[in-house]
Amino acid sequence: MKIRGRHTRSVFLDDHGQIAVFDQRVLPFEIKEYVLSDLVAAHHAIASMVVRGAPLIGITAAFGMALQMRDDASDKALTESAEFLKSARPTAVNLAWAVDLMVSHLTNVGVGDRSHVAMERAWQLLDEDVAVNHAIGLRGLELIKDICAQKGRCQILTHCNAGWLATGDWGTALAPIYMAHDEGLTVHVFADETRPRAQGSLLTAFELGEHGVPVDVLVDNAGGHVMQAGEVDMVIVGTDRVAANGDVANKIGTYLKALAAQDNGIPFYVACPLSTIDHNIEDGCRDIPIEERSRDEVLNVPVMNDGKFAWMPSAAPNVGARNPGFDVTPARLVTALITERGILPATTKAIAELA
Amino acid sequence: MKIRGRHTRSVFLDDHGQIAVFDQRVLPFEIKEYVLSDLVAAHHAIASMVVRGAPLIGITAAFGMALQMRDDASDKALTESAEFLKSARPTAVNLAWAVDLMVSHLTNVGVGDRSHVAMERAWQLLDEDVAVNHAIGLRGLELIKDICAQKGRCQILTHCNAGWLATGDWGTALAPIYMAHDEGLTVHVFADETRPRAQGSLLTAFELGEHGVPVDVLVDNAGGHVMQAGEVDMVIVGTDRVAANGDVANKIGTYLKALAAQDNGIPFYVACPLSTIDHNIEDGCRDIPIEERSRDEVLNVPVMNDGKFAWMPSAAPNVGARNPGFDVTPARLVTALITERGILPATTKAIAELA
Repeated sequence: MKIRGRHTRSVFLDDHGQIAVFDQRVLPFEIKEYVLSDLVAAHHAIASMVVRGAPLIGITAAFGMALQMRDDASDKALTESAEFLKSARPTAVNLAWAVDLMVSHLTNVGVGDRSHVAMERAWQLLDEDVAVNHAIGLRGLELIKDICAQKGRCQILTHCNAGWLATGDWGTALAPIYMAHDEGLTVHVFADETRPRAQGSLLTAFELGEHGVPVDVLVDNAGGHVMQAGEVDMVIVGTDRVAANGDVANKIGTYLKALAAQDNGIPFYVACPLSTIDHNIEDGCRDIPIEERSRDEVLNVPVMNDGKFAWMPSAAPNVGARNPGFDVTPARLVTALITERGILPATTKAIAELA
Repeated sequence: MKIRGRHTRSVFLDDHGQIAVFDQRVLPFEIKEYVLSDLVAAHHAIASMVVRGAPLIGITAAFGMALQMRDDASDKALTESAEFLKSARPTAVNLAWAVDLMVSHLTNVGVGDRSHVAMERAWQLLDEDVAVNHAIGLRGLELIKDICAQKGRCQILTHCNAGWLATGDWGTALAPIYMAHDEGLTVHVFADETRPRAQGSLLTAFELGEHGVPVDVLVDNAGGHVMQAGEVDMVIVGTDRVAANGDVANKIGTYLKALAAQDNGIPFYVACPLSTIDHNIEDGCRDIPIEERSRDEVLNVPVMNDGKFAWMPSAAPNVGARNPGFDVTPARLVTALITERGILPATTKAIAELA
């Protein structure tokens, strides 16, 4: 996808040949590159949300492993760096998935070869993610085409950011939208602001805008009304973890939009790479742990102040706050999962058949 | 209720004996009084949201009429000021209600007496509003007591601000909560932030905090999750207009919380002075007009900057936005209306029996 008109991926070589990502803490007000210089820098990028989005977290961790192998390729370093990276954001299932994949790939490689083998695997993982998202895009594109065939347009509501900034490229939920737009279909996106971190108004609106896709930001409160008013043809969101029963963990607020979609007879799709399915979680609503984040994110808001990104107070002083980072949408509200292998009902049976 | 420890109402005489209100555009970061000096000042207070909340808008309009009668008590001035005030926020039903009440009260009063009669009626209207809210509070208190009797506590979610700042005193949705707290019951409030204008984190959290009621701010996305987690015992919201069929117009986002309450078996109450019922609207979802407000409210956020209230950018540059100010919650999602005359099902039959 494009940033300032230039084609790039979310992990790239900067002008000095260093592995870099965009610092998503300050986008879109500042376009700053962040160098993944070593293991600690990669851990920091994940923990402090320089990078976010389940797929990109996994890819960044893979590069973190590769950088550590460059600096110290011992078995001890391999084991310790894996644990260290997994601790950066314990709830993201793709993080553990990518780290485990790197460990099993490297364990039987000789110490002398680990550095280049690891780096090669990390770049390959990026390619694979892009391919997965491309495949999800093609599956989702068919759904958009069907709606356009009936209505002459497709208006899509999305929550948070599951675009190219959350992945290697394309995005998951946004991949079908980019493809539909590129094919000349009339698509229009409602991007939920997605408080507290406003990934919708900051990142989703930004990346769709850079690509030329028409987008309107909505406050998180407004999605129900636009659905009641008949202005939404489908909802597509990403996910951080899908349980074996089809329950979907995603950014806080997703559940409310799923309820409104059901109440208004609007299809609710979850774009879901197979690596996001956690077959070990039987019942998502009961068992997926929900990260409680800092109250500061609720009592403050992200703004542009003097051309710089800043967080500023936006609540009465000395009041409390709660900040669950995710919620779980029960499978009964999910029309289908859009995976790289096809469109799948969010049921225990269909998910088990994949495993 | 209290502001900085001092008991006051929402309309009061300032230190110079002038009729004044608090400027709610800058609360809670600045406590500024705004003088209702004349008709134009009252109109401006309503139109620019110095005052907001359906009951307080009506009261402010009544004072606007009285001030105009002081300056020009002619029939022409009476008629023209009524129209002028009604135009300030056309969708608030209490505004037209209060203005019509003043006009009918003054029409048969001699021109020489209109000034003092009008002023007396405006203060009386304030007293009546306080009495209505007090009665709503007592009715709602019984509901809270029932929950406390079962659970030993009552956790209440509210949306936007329907507290004393929205009325003459007490508030509508918050009146029962203040009473329960004053009786020593264990109450705790989740205050939705309520983007775009953040009346929840700015006003509701402020006024509950000033009174000592425990309150946690939630982003608008989080209400569904705390309901799923069993942390909410009831929802109480205010309303701008209730249709004859029980459909409820209220601040954008109310509908989403009503859906979540229903999905989790949590009672959803609407605190509703009888003056808020519009018997002329048969079907609220179909016929209540929804005010589309400026996109600037969505693309910017209210913050405290250098000790002052300010709006600052919080979205990608050059993107669109939509900003419906209200939504309509279908009557089927409303457990009951809490009115000054009792607790009422949100049905055509029960509402017709009132008229």
